[in-house]
Amino acid sequence: MSVTDPGPLGWVEPQAHHFTDPLALVSGRVLPAYTLAYETYGELNPSKSNAILVCHALSGHQHAAGWHSAEDKKPGWWDLYIGPGKPIDTDRFFVVCSNNLGGCHGSTGPVDVNPETGAVWGPNFPVMTVKDWVHSQKKLAEVLGITQWAAVIGGSLGGMQALQWAITYPEALRHAVVIASAPKLSAQNIAFNEISRHAIMSDPDFKEGHYRERSVNPKLGLMLARMLGHVTYLSDHAMREKFGRELKTGSLNFDFDTQFQVESYLRYQGETFSGQFDANTYLLMTKALDYFDPAGAFNDDLALALEGTLCQFLLVSFSSDWRFAPERSREMVDALMQARKRVSYAEVEASEGHDAFLLHVPRYYYLLKTYLAQVSTEAGE
Amino acid sequence: MSVTDPGPLGWVEPQAHHFTDPLALVSGRVLPAYTLAYETYGELNPSKSNAILVCHALSGHQHAAGWHSAEDKKPGWWDLYIGPGKPIDTDRFFVVCSNNLGGCHGSTGPVDVNPETGAVWGPNFPVMTVKDWVHSQKKLAEVLGITQWAAVIGGSLGGMQALQWAITYPEALRHAVVIASAPKLSAQNIAFNEISRHAIMSDPDFKEGHYRERSVNPKLGLMLARMLGHVTYLSDHAMREKFGRELKTGSLNFDFDTQFQVESYLRYQGETFSGQFDANTYLLMTKALDYFDPAGAFNDDLALALEGTLCQFLLVSFSSDWRFAPERSREMVDALMQARKRVSYAEVEASEGHDAFLLHVPRYYYLLKTYLAQVSTEAGE
Repeated sequence: MSVTDPGPLGWVEPQAHHFTDPLALVSGRVLPAYTLAYETYGELNPSKSNAILVCHALSGHQHAAGWHSAEDKKPGWWDLYIGPGKPIDTDRFFVVCSNNLGGCHGSTGPVDVNPETGAVWGPNFPVMTVKDWVHSQKKLAEVLGITQWAAVIGGSLGGMQALQWAITYPEALRHAVVIASAPKLSAQNIAFNEISRHAIMSDPDFKEGHYRERSVNPKLGLMLARMLGHVTYLSDHAMREKFGRELKTGSLNFDFDTQFQVESYLRYQGETFSGQFDANTYLLMTKALDYFDPAGAFNDDLALALEGTLCQFLLVSFSSDWRFAPERSREMVDALMQARKRVSYAEVEASEGHDAFLLHVPRYYYLLKTYLAQVSTEAGE
Repeated sequence: MSVTDPGPLGWVEPQAHHFTDPLALVSGRVLPAYTLAYETYGELNPSKSNAILVCHALSGHQHAAGWHSAEDKKPGWWDLYIGPGKPIDTDRFFVVCSNNLGGCHGSTGPVDVNPETGAVWGPNFPVMTVKDWVHSQKKLAEVLGITQWAAVIGGSLGGMQALQWAITYPEALRHAVVIASAPKLSAQNIAFNEISRHAIMSDPDFKEGHYRERSVNPKLGLMLARMLGHVTYLSDHAMREKFGRELKTGSLNFDFDTQFQVESYLRYQGETFSGQFDANTYLLMTKALDYFDPAGAFNDDLALALEGTLCQFLLVSFSSDWRFAPERSREMVDALMQARKRVSYAEVEASEGHDAFLLHVPRYYYLLKTYLAQVSTEAGE
């Protein structure tokens, strides 16, 4: 699919801001200067109180909605949910989405040149944490003149950013919407990430992260990482619905070529991704996931970590999501209740697994729509 | 751990039988001659009616119990369950376990020379199916003079063999014990297998399966396959219990070295395995898993597939096994009931995931012990 009419959002303009003040990172390192690539949808009101920040997940980017040009094959990754009359309603809200630092879609990351050395950052780009991303997003808010978000919203790794916003800058948001997320990864989640990283780092074309200088790309490793990620984002049920045990050719071929539909689908997904995404960015994003643990600084007491938050919370989980299971959302809900915060929680019956947060799930759609319709565009409320 | 006293089983002797009659395979190909490596524990009674066949799983082999020598680091893989006074009681039963054809522990497989060409089979070894294994095990039974097994027992891929025995040779067994298994793989299971195969086949040292002739080994691919397998055999809970989010060094290092305990554990597991197991065998075993589908020939009607069976069935599943979930065992139980067969089923509460079938889970231990204590050592009952 491509498009000739961009619809009510118009052709979306990529934007970027270059920050010349250094950013101190959780790791102790400092980014001397950096760029944040971002997009916006809708209009900022005169009091600058109607802004919503959308945070992206592992393989996401700032292109959350609309179309860039008639050549686009698909719209932004959350186009189903962002636009006029949609849950994140651009008739009411001014929506901002920025590419996380360390990303490979325009914000400063491993693919860029380190101004201090003149060489590509590559594997020497600092390890980023969710907190670092939130710090940098706060700088962007300041540039845009936004002192308080109407809401910060994200799914998965994006949900972690929304939660971190509530903790780090309690006065800077009125609502945090945390979807299909977790207060920290489980050992199983870390294990899947480790396998993905191992696949990338053991690819002979990885060259210890210096693949760009050598004009190669660890495609095979990236492909494996993506295939694995993909399986864990889908539920068993969703895969059954989508592929069953359908054979590509109708009969078993008794060799090691791809045979079941699911195999060729995964290979295609992996192949496409490995041509588009930067391996060092993938490593960095998975590490940020592994490291996220806001309760860690509070003696593992999540309620204590959330004690200073001031916003209202909406948490959403999906019944078939086994990578960020409902149980993990309930941990956050329990901690929020223990800390006497205003929290709504919905466990949505959906068969699509973790991916559900990106898809059209009617109950989830109307839930978000109803919740956000009640979010004021005026400050301080 | 190593051992100076082999215990009541004595030092176990590796055995093998060479078959010179060709074996016709499901794929249409023919193995001109082949060897089955096997072990036995206990004594065959004069009427040869007290024999139990134990079938191994993906990465298993014929060394199911006891010790070969004082140099052994560990006993056979099911030593907890096979021996005098144990559930598979060698005071009563004569236990046989053979290495599946295509394996890499002594039975004819990809590591061997194809007598017709004089070259190593490698990737040209025929794709095997569960039915082929059962056919070859039947030949071994004939060599041993066993016309009817008291029971055929297996977990996971081994359980598939037990089920296939009941279907293919209904009169040749009195009991089938099918543990942590499934009547066919789900799309998700196939997807995990596909990723493992892809990891192996995309390893530059795989050389399209001809790695032995080139004196290399696709270690990295095998390592990834094993790491992935391992994560799927454990439950999230088991990983949490075993590792939590424990750090190796006590603090985050903000680089891409292994950091959490679970990472170094997985790397160690993968590394060890990749030095011991043959890559072509791994491919072949996962394909046999993917292909298993006894209902396929019966219009997808499992009850119809099981109609001709004559044995009693015990099925066991484990609550936290998400790779071969209890739901999958229940499908088999339902089909057996529909076909009016004698079936017992236990869903054992266990936190260890798929691996539970190999571990000491008291309820499971006593269940197997009690069931097998009632299995007669006399024929025809």
